[in-house]
Amino acid sequence: MNQQLIFTNHVAQKLDEIVAEIKPANVAVIVDSNVHDAVIPRMQEESETIRNATIVVVKPGEDHKTTDTLTEIWDKLTSAGVTRSSLLINMGGGVITDMGGFAASTFKRGIPFINIPTTLLGAIDASVGGKTGVNFNGLKNQIGAFAEAETVIVSSTFFKTLPDSELWSGYAEMIKHGLLASKTDFDSLLAYDLTDRNYDRMLTLMEQNVAVKSNIVAADPTEKGIRKALNLGHTAGHAFEELAMERHAPLSHGYAVIFGLLVELILSKNLLGFPETEVSRLAEYIKKHYGVFRITPDEYDRVIALMHQDKKNFTTDTINFTLLTDVGKTEINQTVSEDEIRRALDEYHELLK
Amino acid sequence: MNQQLIFTNHVAQKLDEIVAEIKPANVAVIVDSNVHDAVIPRMQEESETIRNATIVVVKPGEDHKTTDTLTEIWDKLTSAGVTRSSLLINMGGGVITDMGGFAASTFKRGIPFINIPTTLLGAIDASVGGKTGVNFNGLKNQIGAFAEAETVIVSSTFFKTLPDSELWSGYAEMIKHGLLASKTDFDSLLAYDLTDRNYDRMLTLMEQNVAVKSNIVAADPTEKGIRKALNLGHTAGHAFEELAMERHAPLSHGYAVIFGLLVELILSKNLLGFPETEVSRLAEYIKKHYGVFRITPDEYDRVIALMHQDKKNFTTDTINFTLLTDVGKTEINQTVSEDEIRRALDEYHELLK
Repeated sequence: MNQQLIFTNHVAQKLDEIVAEIKPANVAVIVDSNVHDAVIPRMQEESETIRNATIVVVKPGEDHKTTDTLTEIWDKLTSAGVTRSSLLINMGGGVITDMGGFAASTFKRGIPFINIPTTLLGAIDASVGGKTGVNFNGLKNQIGAFAEAETVIVSSTFFKTLPDSELWSGYAEMIKHGLLASKTDFDSLLAYDLTDRNYDRMLTLMEQNVAVKSNIVAADPTEKGIRKALNLGHTAGHAFEELAMERHAPLSHGYAVIFGLLVELILSKNLLGFPETEVSRLAEYIKKHYGVFRITPDEYDRVIALMHQDKKNFTTDTINFTLLTDVGKTEINQTVSEDEIRRALDEYHELLK
Repeated sequence: MNQQLIFTNHVAQKLDEIVAEIKPANVAVIVDSNVHDAVIPRMQEESETIRNATIVVVKPGEDHKTTDTLTEIWDKLTSAGVTRSSLLINMGGGVITDMGGFAASTFKRGIPFINIPTTLLGAIDASVGGKTGVNFNGLKNQIGAFAEAETVIVSSTFFKTLPDSELWSGYAEMIKHGLLASKTDFDSLLAYDLTDRNYDRMLTLMEQNVAVKSNIVAADPTEKGIRKALNLGHTAGHAFEELAMERHAPLSHGYAVIFGLLVELILSKNLLGFPETEVSRLAEYIKKHYGVFRITPDEYDRVIALMHQDKKNFTTDTINFTLLTDVGKTEINQTVSEDEIRRALDEYHELLK
């Protein structure tokens, strides 16, 4: 894999340069109707590529990340005369880059594609690493492939219209990368004030941060080993996300991840001697910027059941986690007992009180 | 890619050995209803793997090589609790190995699979080389991926119930490989009497023959260059196949290929000095075993239009072919004028008269 990652706040110009080099027979762009309305008119003014492209518009949101929408995309690519000499551009959040990447990787056994993420979460997480797919029968990303974009163009200019909560959601994944990388990275993330919306500073920070993920992915593209490091925070996080769904009060992915990170740092402290001061710093940061996600002790059993489900290991009474011995020091495949999880959930509450 | 190719006439025993090594969490088998009835009962008796597997049965034939059947397969794999620790076995002709391979490569972003081809064409062609896919909107293999089986188990025992014409159809692809490989290979293929149905001899010949293809595929898995050698005979062959379809008198793929090979050897002779004696030998062999596929001069325009369509290069009045300077000596990307094609079609008729 040799994915090109470009960080720029001059997207239209950069895109035209790249496409002039690739010289595709034609170009199709996949967007959802929100991005279509918010971004495409300006992009059509500024970029010759977008002006001349076929625009494929799909319905927005996770609910439409389905094999039906996938079939619709394949159908429109066929009508647009897309071939292996064409280029596909996925412009949008994680749903679009996941689904569009999968459509590209399976159309005529694979056509080249470029991702242009328009959300912070998409830029940090979904647009890099080659995980593509759609939901199927209610299961997330049940159908998909590992397929990397030729190029990912990351820009913070798209974030101007994002609400703060969307930025914080993406920032949770950045903090995860900081924890996996080094104390310096983690420190600079906690020191940066996201709400001042300094887009150039944000772009620099994203560039450093995405490098953490792409290095891990390059070492293990198909998730046989070290890539599991990227699951940090997600075993507890997914369980919280599901629990919130069951309560009919959905928690956005990034928020679930930040609360999950705190639980898993507590487990890291209790089981692997991860430093207590770092746990407290994260807890303070979360209280200030993300608030509190409360679970009551009588919900612990449900949380643990959801963790089992996420990991698909119902057979044992332990659960696998990615944990840390220190900031920047990962241990994958850590077996944790249900009692340890209960104890960590108690501490989580104490810390966020 | 490190696909394991096994040639054996003890399929059940070999399969059980391989599966005992892989230790999958569970096994699913994809077959069409014909193979299900003809092969599964005996395999269930002989193989523990098949006895314990979930059998997924789909409707037979190219007409059901669709995204609908694909969805049906994904659905059944989900119900059967198939995960990345499972193993999928595709047992059947090219339709099943193409479609089942694609289902496997996209289910949970890819699960391991084994191909067990049950036809000669499948054994020689479709089960090796990682091209998977389904038809879409009437276009062959429009949706698919490059994904190799972990293991392909090739056996001639399945051919006992195949009619002669099915064997000859597969043998056309073997002859193509012989032409690409060497004079020795080509000679031994023309010398072998397919109709004596000596299955052990056939297995040996298949082993030598499939090696030709797997070497070419290994050198160029995603068809950027030399893999195009495998298109020999197919530019003319696909056009004949389509023409026969339009006449409502379908020609099976292998028959179309053998007639296409003759046309393309004539082009090779006229343009690249391919030896005339070899052209004549192939023509004699075809007359004896395949008969004649006649096209009239007023159909030449249609044949040429179909060749353009196959290659998707409508813009020029030349067509790209893979040709030979001699047996075993390939030249890809050879530009041929429409006049040269007309001349070759005239000669084709003379030779098969």
